[in-house]
Amino acid sequence: MNDPNVLFGSLFEPKRIALIGASADAAKTTSRPQRFLQKHGFAGEILPVNPSRSEILGVPAFRDLDAIAGEIDHAYILLNGRAAVAALEACGRRGVKVASILAGGFADAGADGASLQGDLSRIVRETGIRLVGPNSIGTVSTDPPVALTANAAFAVDRLRAGNWAVVSQSGSLIGALLSRADARGIGFSRLVSVGNEVDLAVGEIADLLVADARTDAILLFMETLRDGDRLARAARRAHAAGKPVIAYKLGRSEAGQELARSHTGAIAGSDATFDAFCRRHGIARVSMFESLVDVPSLLVGRPLARGRRVAVATTTGGGAAMVVDNMAVAGLDIVGPPRGLVDWLKPLGIAAGDGRLVDLTLAGAKPDIVAGTLERLLADDGNDAVVFVVGSSAQFNPELAVEPLLRFAGTRKPFAVALTPAAEKSLALLTAGGVAAFRQPESCAEAMALCLQRPVPAVVTGVAEPSVEALSALADGKRSGFDERRATALFAALGIPVAKSAAVPDARRVVSAVQEIGAPVALKILSADIPHKTEAGGVALGIPDGQAAAVVAREMERKVKAHAPHARLEGFLVQKMERGLAEVILGFRRDPLVGPTVTVGLGGVLAEIYKDASTRLAPVGEQEALEMILEVKGLATIRGFRGMRKGDVAALARAISAFSMLAHAALAEVSEAEINPLLVKGEREGVVAVDGLVIAG
Amino acid sequence: MNDPNVLFGSLFEPKRIALIGASADAAKTTSRPQRFLQKHGFAGEILPVNPSRSEILGVPAFRDLDAIAGEIDHAYILLNGRAAVAALEACGRRGVKVASILAGGFADAGADGASLQGDLSRIVRETGIRLVGPNSIGTVSTDPPVALTANAAFAVDRLRAGNWAVVSQSGSLIGALLSRADARGIGFSRLVSVGNEVDLAVGEIADLLVADARTDAILLFMETLRDGDRLARAARRAHAAGKPVIAYKLGRSEAGQELARSHTGAIAGSDATFDAFCRRHGIARVSMFESLVDVPSLLVGRPLARGRRVAVATTTGGGAAMVVDNMAVAGLDIVGPPRGLVDWLKPLGIAAGDGRLVDLTLAGAKPDIVAGTLERLLADDGNDAVVFVVGSSAQFNPELAVEPLLRFAGTRKPFAVALTPAAEKSLALLTAGGVAAFRQPESCAEAMALCLQRPVPAVVTGVAEPSVEALSALADGKRSGFDERRATALFAALGIPVAKSAAVPDARRVVSAVQEIGAPVALKILSADIPHKTEAGGVALGIPDGQAAAVVAREMERKVKAHAPHARLEGFLVQKMERGLAEVILGFRRDPLVGPTVTVGLGGVLAEIYKDASTRLAPVGEQEALEMILEVKGLATIRGFRGMRKGDVAALARAISAFSMLAHAALAEVSEAEINPLLVKGEREGVVAVDGLVIAG
Repeated sequence: MNDPNVLFGSLFEPKRIALIGASADAAKTTSRPQRFLQKHGFAGEILPVNPSRSEILGVPAFRDLDAIAGEIDHAYILLNGRAAVAALEACGRRGVKVASILAGGFADAGADGASLQGDLSRIVRETGIRLVGPNSIGTVSTDPPVALTANAAFAVDRLRAGNWAVVSQSGSLIGALLSRADARGIGFSRLVSVGNEVDLAVGEIADLLVADARTDAILLFMETLRDGDRLARAARRAHAAGKPVIAYKLGRSEAGQELARSHTGAIAGSDATFDAFCRRHGIARVSMFESLVDVPSLLVGRPLARGRRVAVATTTGGGAAMVVDNMAVAGLDIVGPPRGLVDWLKPLGIAAGDGRLVDLTLAGAKPDIVAGTLERLLADDGNDAVVFVVGSSAQFNPELAVEPLLRFAGTRKPFAVALTPAAEKSLALLTAGGVAAFRQPESCAEAMALCLQRPVPAVVTGVAEPSVEALSALADGKRSGFDERRATALFAALGIPVAKSAAVPDARRVVSAVQEIGAPVALKILSADIPHKTEAGGVALGIPDGQAAAVVAREMERKVKAHAPHARLEGFLVQKMERGLAEVILGFRRDPLVGPTVTVGLGGVLAEIYKDASTRLAPVGEQEALEMILEVKGLATIRGFRGMRKGDVAALARAISAFSMLAHAALAEVSEAEINPLLVKGEREGVVAVDGLVIAG
Repeated sequence: MNDPNVLFGSLFEPKRIALIGASADAAKTTSRPQRFLQKHGFAGEILPVNPSRSEILGVPAFRDLDAIAGEIDHAYILLNGRAAVAALEACGRRGVKVASILAGGFADAGADGASLQGDLSRIVRETGIRLVGPNSIGTVSTDPPVALTANAAFAVDRLRAGNWAVVSQSGSLIGALLSRADARGIGFSRLVSVGNEVDLAVGEIADLLVADARTDAILLFMETLRDGDRLARAARRAHAAGKPVIAYKLGRSEAGQELARSHTGAIAGSDATFDAFCRRHGIARVSMFESLVDVPSLLVGRPLARGRRVAVATTTGGGAAMVVDNMAVAGLDIVGPPRGLVDWLKPLGIAAGDGRLVDLTLAGAKPDIVAGTLERLLADDGNDAVVFVVGSSAQFNPELAVEPLLRFAGTRKPFAVALTPAAEKSLALLTAGGVAAFRQPESCAEAMALCLQRPVPAVVTGVAEPSVEALSALADGKRSGFDERRATALFAALGIPVAKSAAVPDARRVVSAVQEIGAPVALKILSADIPHKTEAGGVALGIPDGQAAAVVAREMERKVKAHAPHARLEGFLVQKMERGLAEVILGFRRDPLVGPTVTVGLGGVLAEIYKDASTRLAPVGEQEALEMILEVKGLATIRGFRGMRKGDVAALARAISAFSMLAHAALAEVSEAEINPLLVKGEREGVVAVDGLVIAG
């Protein structure tokens, strides 16, 4: 069943729902879906299936699926293990369009579970039924209401409708988000718990939601990434449709990644890699849980904002200072008021313009002054966004406090309100009025930084097709093994300058090679069987002339043979010694979740200690490569830091982009590659790759 | 008036309060103190002073202060500018014990204001009156109630009493904290807005609160530090009394520091310096505003906890995963359950022990299972603290959900509960029951990290008195100017190994000096008039022998004379070239706010880019110096990172401790000093200072 409209309808607006294993016992989790459907006014038909009951909660029950006549849009399977598998099989045979499985105990629970999960996959493949879960706590729509879920949080009296959709890999979190948002007066359009994602995964569901007229924003709670290509497509389509996609993902720490693995049987990718994925495809990633609910209101319905200059006005200095401090820590610039505002406030007895914060003080806590201030700040080209920080008036006179703020709902320029006291009423009024409002200075800062620096889907341009030379260098390396010479030959074929070198079959020929290349040289043993040449005694640096090189070569051969008697030696690589202003590492790998990535970092042990590197999905164009270079703090050394001599940043960007071409499908056999070091010379002097490796196959 | 008991009584439990400039007009801020005092049941006598009214809000008003008979404990001056100054003068003459001034417009408002503030200082000095403010929005006690404040937040119907005190440099924030804490069922004992701190500052007030029987914890909201010595004393006494001191301080960003300056006319110190202050004196610093209210419940009434191993149990995997992820990011280790718990859960059908998280799942959401789990975790020596993460039961069955948790209030081992949904009722029940409960996974993680790694007041030991040699090296440097030779002489006198060197008056004598010291050498011009010798051409390195050194010396003299014709040259320093495994910078300075500090960082441009350094109040003992070394990430290079050769960390610690002795009062004339570089050699090979500077006077 692959028609997205039918799938959408069956998932979110089903007319007839079968509950397989339904229960009338309110103490049982399996009774919840029916109770919640009924409680929240599901207008369609509920079809409980339970062989031992003729009626459940006032609705006639069926012995089995075959006892039900007519089409079934969605079947929620509330049975465990083998029984759930059998039920899915029955659904598939019966032509049910979508099934969900509540139970865990599949790939999330060891080898036996994984085998059961394999059965589910097979049934999906064979019957064409679409499956949510297993381990899915349900799929909910609010308008029209379909509370098809076993999550206890849906016991609320009223299911609030709204225009943001939630797709979550954690079932419990859809309940947590429901309750947290509801407490702030925010409702959702849809909430889906995708569970183990045997079939329908986050990406495909997000993709369905892009076309949903009731959905303006798509919020993701993620533990891993299973259908990256599909999510990428969804994020790009959502961006084009003006619907922000906002993700919270577990796994910023090792412990969190381990947990995501054990919790859902998922492979958790590295955090930097997921960041690169989000950036490439235009997904806004939040780091605070509360931000998932806080951020959308700042993004939805606004053109994309850009910049880092934020103007802040307030009636409460201390509260605003916290917002300013956090925004500055988040990398935003706080900018002062325009002349026009300072002049307007002066006759009102308010001295703004000394500092960057516009502090109206208590004297300015009047609706007209607040509104006049905001009007002038929002009209000012000197800032990219405006924040107003409210004090205790929000607590005691919510209507009065928010009235001048509500006028600015829907401004093109991002506008946010931060509340200093606990002021739930004001928060609700602002939210209902469409003004982004924040309780925590930290999440206000995170939201604003995200709003102004939100990634947009990148279109990679200027990356050429791999040349004939590159393809033949790959074939050569595959045939004979990727020793250093063949690795650098591939890099050279991609367009990366490599150190001048010559391969010679034996020590005697070293002298003439040095003559040809020019001293000083480095000498390296050639053997595809020795990955760590230095440890094997197979590397010598800074050899001053050909005679010395020949002597070193003979000694090296002896040492290497002693170290690795069975290695096949193919001679020596004689390489020109190169010097640069900085040593850079370029890394390429095919990530199991997000696909090819390219990483640039500073070479040497300090860069490793400081974990100072920038990662992107590959390939990258030169412009994006330049952004990567800017992100590597340690590369300030070639960007003119403290009057240091500048390096050839443009050539480095070209090399990164060329290297990232390894992502091309025609080079798919390269699974990993590294250039280490790539030396960066002075401006307009280029870069040169000195050593590297390629892992193929 | 310096008797702390009298001061305490007048501030927090005054019997007779004068309100100078009181108003009956509810629209005016100046009417608030009287309204709030009355509203919250102040049992003492209110004495409004207003020349144009005979009665205010039902209380007889006085023409002036002299019209009031008898003692006045506390006078709140609600007038502005000169009138406020005159009122303080009258209070001082009249023998009022404590006055507070509401108005701003003093040092927070330019030169005119600063001059007015000078008048306030003079009056305090001359009359002995104690002053809170100016720019103080009030001082509040809850039991017995004294709501002496103009902060609008105190318009609440009920002033909740509690056992934590708030001292804030921001007036508006006492209102924000009141409302935020009240919303969670938390009350305070006292709330003080200290304003510009002309007289009574944060430290002295905190010091008064240490002896307050109604106060268990002292919370500080700070923009700057004005009475550091007093606050240090208060923090140490509070620690001894088992009362945690918890601080939120603005100024983590440049913009925040600038704002703190302009907002209150304060000097904002550097953030690392304030951190060092907190660490030395045992103040727990929080980074999230919400943590100020969240953290105390985890600390109050518990013995000091130590460690990083946290056990986490839950009924809701996704919510717990967020807590785990944030705790791991905060540097805590998540540890698995003890065997005994795994065995106990097994027959109950709960499989714990596969991962580190104890996930009871829905099946374990029964009071006995939760309680049994917590009992076993809290008794386990394998962890240092326990967190329980509650799911939706907290929202719908708060009594049931919290019942098994409340049994563990007051455990010696830190125990916290994190709530996944919005569950205000559970939060309030837990808070009332004395269990630390958290709404945000981020602040739960911050609180737990702080709880387990809370600084305790440090007693510095093993730091010797400055020797006669050190005093004489200081005198010598002061007399003749601190060129490099005299700087290193001082360092040597402090006990820091310095590179072998000789000073010679002219180029001719260089040859014999090299003979004496041994080649290769470095040659440096000697002149107190040339601070940047390299730029002046006054440094040459790696000179292989004496003849070459003499040639270099003559050339150097010519270059330096051309560069700085008026500099007084005193000859040359011939220094043995030294090599080490790492270059370290040591810095010493006397900070205007916290006093002497010592900083250790890795030398070189990368360390500067990564801002990788550790700062402490000076002096430091060797143990604390070792901790500093561990905090400098880049020094992993001498701690055995990746099998690299280890450096002499012990000698480095000795050198840091010796260098920090510059803090000694006898060396007070040294305002700043730096050793750059200090070379760290291999294990048991020591360290050696190669270059440095001292700024005296």
